Amino acid sequence: MAAAAALTPATPLRFKPYSTLRFLSFYSKNPTNPRLFPPLPRRSVPSHSTFHRKRCFCSVISAALQSGEMKKTEFAEKKVGEMGNKVGEFRKKVKIANIKGGPDEGLNWVGQTLVVMGWVRTLRVQSSVTFLEVNDGSSLSNMQCVMNSDAEGYDQVESGLISTGASVWVQGTLVASQGSKQKVELKVEKVVLVGKSDPSYPIQKKRVSREFLRSKAHLRPRTNTFGAVARVRNALAYATHKFFQENGFVWISSPIITASDCEGAGEQFCVTTLIPSSREAADSPVNAIPNTKEGLIDWSQDFFGKPAFLTVSGQLNAETYATALTDVYTFGPTFRAENSNTSRHLAEFWMIEPELAFADLNDDMACATAYLQYVVRHVLDNCKEDMEFFNTWIEKGVIDRLNDVAEKDFVQLTYTDAIELLLKANKKFEFPVKWGCDLQSEHERYITEQAFNGCPVIIRDYPKEIKAFYMRENDDGKTVAAMDMLVPRVGELIGGSQREERLDYLENRLDELKLNKESYWWYLDLRRYGSVPHAGFGLGFERLVQFATGVENIRDAIPFPRTPGSAEF
Amino acid sequence: MAAAAALTPATPLRFKPYSTLRFLSFYSKNPTNPRLFPPLPRRSVPSHSTFHRKRCFCSVISAALQSGEMKKTEFAEKKVGEMGNKVGEFRKKVKIANIKGGPDEGLNWVGQTLVVMGWVRTLRVQSSVTFLEVNDGSSLSNMQCVMNSDAEGYDQVESGLISTGASVWVQGTLVASQGSKQKVELKVEKVVLVGKSDPSYPIQKKRVSREFLRSKAHLRPRTNTFGAVARVRNALAYATHKFFQENGFVWISSPIITASDCEGAGEQFCVTTLIPSSREAADSPVNAIPNTKEGLIDWSQDFFGKPAFLTVSGQLNAETYATALTDVYTFGPTFRAENSNTSRHLAEFWMIEPELAFADLNDDMACATAYLQYVVRHVLDNCKEDMEFFNTWIEKGVIDRLNDVAEKDFVQLTYTDAIELLLKANKKFEFPVKWGCDLQSEHERYITEQAFNGCPVIIRDYPKEIKAFYMRENDDGKTVAAMDMLVPRVGELIGGSQREERLDYLENRLDELKLNKESYWWYLDLRRYGSVPHAGFGLGFERLVQFATGVENIRDAIPFPRTPGSAEF
Repeated sequence: MAAAAALTPATPLRFKPYSTLRFLSFYSKNPTNPRLFPPLPRRSVPSHSTFHRKRCFCSVISAALQSGEMKKTEFAEKKVGEMGNKVGEFRKKVKIANIKGGPDEGLNWVGQTLVVMGWVRTLRVQSSVTFLEVNDGSSLSNMQCVMNSDAEGYDQVESGLISTGASVWVQGTLVASQGSKQKVELKVEKVVLVGKSDPSYPIQKKRVSREFLRSKAHLRPRTNTFGAVARVRNALAYATHKFFQENGFVWISSPIITASDCEGAGEQFCVTTLIPSSREAADSPVNAIPNTKEGLIDWSQDFFGKPAFLTVSGQLNAETYATALTDVYTFGPTFRAENSNTSRHLAEFWMIEPELAFADLNDDMACATAYLQYVVRHVLDNCKEDMEFFNTWIEKGVIDRLNDVAEKDFVQLTYTDAIELLLKANKKFEFPVKWGCDLQSEHERYITEQAFNGCPVIIRDYPKEIKAFYMRENDDGKTVAAMDMLVPRVGELIGGSQREERLDYLENRLDELKLNKESYWWYLDLRRYGSVPHAGFGLGFERLVQFATGVENIRDAIPFPRTPGSAEF
Repeated sequence: MAAAAALTPATPLRFKPYSTLRFLSFYSKNPTNPRLFPPLPRRSVPSHSTFHRKRCFCSVISAALQSGEMKKTEFAEKKVGEMGNKVGEFRKKVKIANIKGGPDEGLNWVGQTLVVMGWVRTLRVQSSVTFLEVNDGSSLSNMQCVMNSDAEGYDQVESGLISTGASVWVQGTLVASQGSKQKVELKVEKVVLVGKSDPSYPIQKKRVSREFLRSKAHLRPRTNTFGAVARVRNALAYATHKFFQENGFVWISSPIITASDCEGAGEQFCVTTLIPSSREAADSPVNAIPNTKEGLIDWSQDFFGKPAFLTVSGQLNAETYATALTDVYTFGPTFRAENSNTSRHLAEFWMIEPELAFADLNDDMACATAYLQYVVRHVLDNCKEDMEFFNTWIEKGVIDRLNDVAEKDFVQLTYTDAIELLLKANKKFEFPVKWGCDLQSEHERYITEQAFNGCPVIIRDYPKEIKAFYMRENDDGKTVAAMDMLVPRVGELIGGSQREERLDYLENRLDELKLNKESYWWYLDLRRYGSVPHAGFGLGFERLVQFATGVENIRDAIPFPRTPGSAEF
């Protein structure tokens, strides 16, 4: 492990241009100006580029190329107070998306010397020329790198070290491409293998099933599909924050662990330290768990002094902040310990739960509609290439479907009218329709896909018996101010309600349902001190990702899915 | 629970102007144009306002005032296909921050008829005039509402129903204020009590301790301090997303529950369904837990089929995405089951963990520095009023301290130099200083507060024995490419490292530490297939909130703190 060994490259190869360069780059020649990575070959900034207002750079190696004789500054000889260097400047990397993502697909960069760093997707060796497709994850598009045998480092291609899955550093000149698939390509001057790919690399060019890729969740983002899902998921998340922030909502982190008794609904995961942590857990005897004289679990010895669980919703907590800050939203993980092995259920999923004070169900529906239209429009505008990929390979028509959502008026109708509509339908349903029944997926899809022809539909004013205790009772005494938003293909995407803000109504409802009022003391306090009409909704973020991308299985809509029997990685 | 009862207001009072109006507003007169809440009294948009590009509205009651004779449309008589109404338009509310937060502090709104909805902070009845301070949580500032006895609804002031903590709807004309504390005030035409406040309201005007307020976590956002903390926390979170999104990073949700064996460090919470969920847990007998013949816990019957835990860090997962998408970041909750009852520890806290591929420790330090300066600058620019509040009431000088961070160059020095600096210091430390020791808080504070005079300092290249297995070994074979950022007052705020990307080095290190390589198969795969130099850092979000606001106890930096013995709400 001495200095010589440190020059060994990332993988045990015979040559080491990359790591040598990198190591030499660690210390600045000039301690008063320790910016280690000056931009590579100066280039004039293309006129159509969005980069003229930003500083760009290609990290690590670009500088190393210029820093051959750098050596470590000897701080130790300095006096105290003179020690220390300035921290270098952070500069945004130029990635493939920046080069090829502009309106002219990279033509404005033609003639520039560029460095591309990424992973080899394919390598095609032809008689006179070699094509290397390099992807850096910034876009679906690869950079096509075209190499003659005189390019520096070409021997690594010949020896087979540069292969699918390997990471490379490529420097060249951007030129207009002869091919029909891209406007520009990189004419390679120099290629450096950064890390080779073992021949066992499981994601070779042949198509692999999404089921197989779930067992390789650590490598699947290197595929077209999962790279695109990750980028669209990111865009949906950022658009979510933008929408709420632009509308004056405050992001609240609702708690994940809760010992509060009032979450109620749904199977919950228990969180405990009574079982030894980590590696010892597997061989833990049951009788090592602290117990009382009566043989019950002794919760007083647990971390929180009582049973604690993973949250199923942040809504009740969000209400406390909405009744202080007016408009808030949560965006965090929630959990269900339901043993559902379906393509629509996860044990761990992210939820968005806005809560609006001084608002009723109409405000709530308007907000949910505006939110959904905003994030869909954001993805259509900002993820064009990825959406075209989904449209071609995952769900034909997904772009039209999203355009409909972004542009069409959403329809609202009452549950009572929806039941009537279903009863009049010329369609035999598996589950019989009757006022008071819960709407099944087949009913929801009939309404949004057939009765309203692909238009999102909000159903409101459900029977109170099939809805949660906190929903506001309507004048009729039979229904509550609840709403579910149905969208084509996915069915229910958003569920919300106006909350019962009247103390006496809420207490009566808790009594009717035999819930323990004491547990809800703080929730009832919100009605005791300056209660206001308020409303909110919840949206499962992975359902939204499914909806926007067309991926069929929700396990492909989150990086590391948790389902019964599966919490790997 | 019939229609008449539904007209009862939010709290059982004798009069009910608000709820009556609201109920009448539920259904639109005109089903083809169901926008229920047209903007109240039309106003010309002030010329200096930022609102000329946005549609604004005052929700709920404004419309109700104009909709006295609305009645429910009879959908039921329509044919299928004609059912349903359009969902109303969502419009941004005008809040107190929008009115008073502009450069002329509201003067550009003078003459406008406005509606303010919020909670009464104080009420001062003078001989000829009554002052009502109303806060809607959008800003620290209240709207001072000035009322004569001829204002509609004034009887509710006289009868004592409008009191501290009550929620109100106030309509009036904005006028220039005679007082020195604000530029504008609302001359009240009409006031409506929305929800009264029980006299037991625990947050009266007298100052209450922050310790007491922790037991009222559901009401504390209604105080100046916690309202301001919530807004600054929100600004820090949004600035975090903005910084990384603007620099091409992709947000990744790392998993919360993990059965992966390679998290290792730190006390973890166990997540299980072997203990009955929710209400039954309290009386659960130990022997009801499934066990094997040998008396061990039978994990095969647990939800995930093996022991599962709450994550302590998303880093290893983030590395899988960084080595596919180049630059990623996580922002999510993480957990420590450590029994630390200090002002700096939470059992549940949010972490930001960026991970950069094709990057070394210098890039990492540059990114951490740029990030911190960005978010600090964002808060100084966007939370002026709240920061002035903290500067006056929480930590004198916090604004100067943050300005220093935003503007000064950060210093970097090696651990070895830091040790030398400490050894030369004219200061007796409680913990003796010696190469190889972990730096204690007293050392860190000496370095950043005294040796470098309040400048943030990054210490790098720590002895490998005191750092994590995944950190990249330096050429000297003794140190690793780790870095800790120290800031005045808080001490360590950010910790990061370049990751060991060389497969053989990493495997050797796992062997040295007697860690089970099989558990790390997927982490090692990242080094097997196209390994790249990469680096990242972690930042405890609540520490950042403490740092930015000056609040001393971390339990006041998160809405619902989880600590030993405490997981209420």
